[in-house]
Amino acid sequence: MKKNVLIIGAGGVAQVVAHKCAQHNDILGDLHIASRTRAKCDAIIASVHEKGAMKVQGTFEAHAVDAMDTAAVADLIRKTGAQIVINVGSSFVNMTVLAACIETGAAYMDTAIHEDPEKICEAPPWYGNYEWKRRAACKAAGVTAILGVGFDPGVVNAYARLAEDEFLDTIESIDIVDINAGSHGRWFATNFDPEINFREFTGTVYSWQQGAWQSNTMFEVGKEWDLPVVGKQKAYMTGHDEVHSLSARYSQADVRFWMGFGDHYINVFTVLKNLGLLSEQPVKTAEGQEVIPLKVVKAVLPDPASLAPDYEGKTCIGDVIKGTKNGKPAEVFIYNVADHKEAYEEVGSQGISYTAGVPPVAAALLIAKGVWDVGTMVNVEELPPRPFLELLGEMGLPSRVIDPTGADRAI
Amino acid sequence: MKKNVLIIGAGGVAQVVAHKCAQHNDILGDLHIASRTRAKCDAIIASVHEKGAMKVQGTFEAHAVDAMDTAAVADLIRKTGAQIVINVGSSFVNMTVLAACIETGAAYMDTAIHEDPEKICEAPPWYGNYEWKRRAACKAAGVTAILGVGFDPGVVNAYARLAEDEFLDTIESIDIVDINAGSHGRWFATNFDPEINFREFTGTVYSWQQGAWQSNTMFEVGKEWDLPVVGKQKAYMTGHDEVHSLSARYSQADVRFWMGFGDHYINVFTVLKNLGLLSEQPVKTAEGQEVIPLKVVKAVLPDPASLAPDYEGKTCIGDVIKGTKNGKPAEVFIYNVADHKEAYEEVGSQGISYTAGVPPVAAALLIAKGVWDVGTMVNVEELPPRPFLELLGEMGLPSRVIDPTGADRAI
Repeated sequence: MKKNVLIIGAGGVAQVVAHKCAQHNDILGDLHIASRTRAKCDAIIASVHEKGAMKVQGTFEAHAVDAMDTAAVADLIRKTGAQIVINVGSSFVNMTVLAACIETGAAYMDTAIHEDPEKICEAPPWYGNYEWKRRAACKAAGVTAILGVGFDPGVVNAYARLAEDEFLDTIESIDIVDINAGSHGRWFATNFDPEINFREFTGTVYSWQQGAWQSNTMFEVGKEWDLPVVGKQKAYMTGHDEVHSLSARYSQADVRFWMGFGDHYINVFTVLKNLGLLSEQPVKTAEGQEVIPLKVVKAVLPDPASLAPDYEGKTCIGDVIKGTKNGKPAEVFIYNVADHKEAYEEVGSQGISYTAGVPPVAAALLIAKGVWDVGTMVNVEELPPRPFLELLGEMGLPSRVIDPTGADRAI
Repeated sequence: MKKNVLIIGAGGVAQVVAHKCAQHNDILGDLHIASRTRAKCDAIIASVHEKGAMKVQGTFEAHAVDAMDTAAVADLIRKTGAQIVINVGSSFVNMTVLAACIETGAAYMDTAIHEDPEKICEAPPWYGNYEWKRRAACKAAGVTAILGVGFDPGVVNAYARLAEDEFLDTIESIDIVDINAGSHGRWFATNFDPEINFREFTGTVYSWQQGAWQSNTMFEVGKEWDLPVVGKQKAYMTGHDEVHSLSARYSQADVRFWMGFGDHYINVFTVLKNLGLLSEQPVKTAEGQEVIPLKVVKAVLPDPASLAPDYEGKTCIGDVIKGTKNGKPAEVFIYNVADHKEAYEEVGSQGISYTAGVPPVAAALLIAKGVWDVGTMVNVEELPPRPFLELLGEMGLPSRVIDPTGADRAI
């Protein structure tokens, strides 16, 4: 049983987290949001009040913090009395924020694996490079740390566990498919921080198949999927966080991640990558200025948060899980369909931010209620999925399943 | 009658100019080369000696100079005793180098219109914005200034004049077609300074048609041409320097410039332009660093000079000129075909640099001999073309004509 929430970060996902926390502040208590630039936090709080999102009268305060500074984050946790920290800042700050939680006893959540700004795509399993090294420290301190509790990773991990718990006896493959069939109307934009977005796709594509890590390059393996609502969509095997934890629990199964890309995205990505403009290594201009090309690409692209007002269409993200039931081959597809426009109307963000931002608030509520306050470090598939998925349904992200009989129904 | 040459610039074209000057140093006298970075000049002189290019024993010295500083350039002209300045530095330095020539009495040549780093594609005619404003000053000082005496502009202007002098009674249209059918083997590269290359294509495409300036956008107007040696090639109407002078002398004619582009070039250009990466206006990164995107693109692209060793294939550049002869419609195509590999073997540069760098040396020889030492500012079409074109033929750039009878022969 914990309360009072500190949100780290002030981007598009943080905006959703803030609105959803406000909608449940009767349970969550005081709310705080902190980022390097306080003005961004102020703007998010203003949008919360504009929508009248606070369920009951209460505190929502903005703070400036350097989240790379553990002591500063720990001080802020103590000052605010936050017992729950939702880290939706850049993936570069995971380890410092986690350290501050271990120091103060606050529960920790994030939505992506820690990244080192200097490196791209480290050795699998990625979690083993950073977060999992603090597992014993969390356990010793009794700190609840729920890793990767956005949509993917996060909800899709719970889908795998739901299949294990309720639909299948054995699991032979988990294919996570992420399709954004929406349109933002811009010539080109990324749906979240371009720096993180492109970094996902410039390295090796790791998948877990036949009991071992397999390596491919981006856009090397493509497959058309036929999904509810969004229809036939081409997706490509991509490196992604959840593959690196699901492969531990489901080591006997093939675990792959597939992301939908249109030809236009692939073309722009290919041009930028082949020219060297996605590099995180500095180059020197003729005038002698040292510049990191990827940061310049980020600077010229639209701010992902700015896409929300015009975003239309739907996303479909889910798990195709194959295995056996009663000794016979069986398959389920557990999924969510979200709508960009509905997300914007409710919380002022597009659907990609919405699907990433609602789950950590659901997790915070489960921690507040004691259901998920496990006092150790876990990935989402290690937790009971039903309370989480049912709460998400109430909060705007309903899950459905095409069960082994082929029936498409609410979970 | 003048002698002693100062070359300004140390890029791929300067390399060709240096080799060609060396091959004619019996007439040209002492040779000097200056750029911001003296080491680049040293490297060029070393390559001249490596090829044994100096026709007779003589001086070839390197200097460091800031070509944006008129006084520094004038000092260098006086110190070296140069009576001929070949400016093949960046187009940003034309006006300061020209001022130094007017001050010292040295003859001036360049191969492109002056550009202001802050602006792209100014009002037509472009020459009217800068160079032509100094025409009276050149005349008063008796200074020979030959503007735009590379290949295009330059040789193609002489082709128009040759058609006027020898093939046609009236001229109704001049279409300059520039095809590079060579291959450098890189994924993407520009053939000359990317900053200048892209700036040519990001602004309005000006052409002179029906007695007035017409505006189009880049890649809006395309046409397939069937040319000698290189065959059928798609080219696009492009803004280019020579249109802005030829339209003055041939104001009754349509004057257009066409440049060949493959689909791959167009795709890369379109991606970079639409993302804002070709902008010369600074952007600010998330970290607060001010950066000019175009300079970063330049930094990641291959140095055009580095393409030379692997460059294969041919260029074809010429003028399709239509009009009348003896009252009947008549047409000529006057052109040159150059070979990348031959250029590299002779002077260590690729064909694009070769075709741009040989003409100003031919012009320098004509000034040295008094043939073109006109004591005022001119564009190439104002000078007798035959001595120039014949000399170029001896120097490695032979011209041919498909005459009104359809015969393809040396000019």
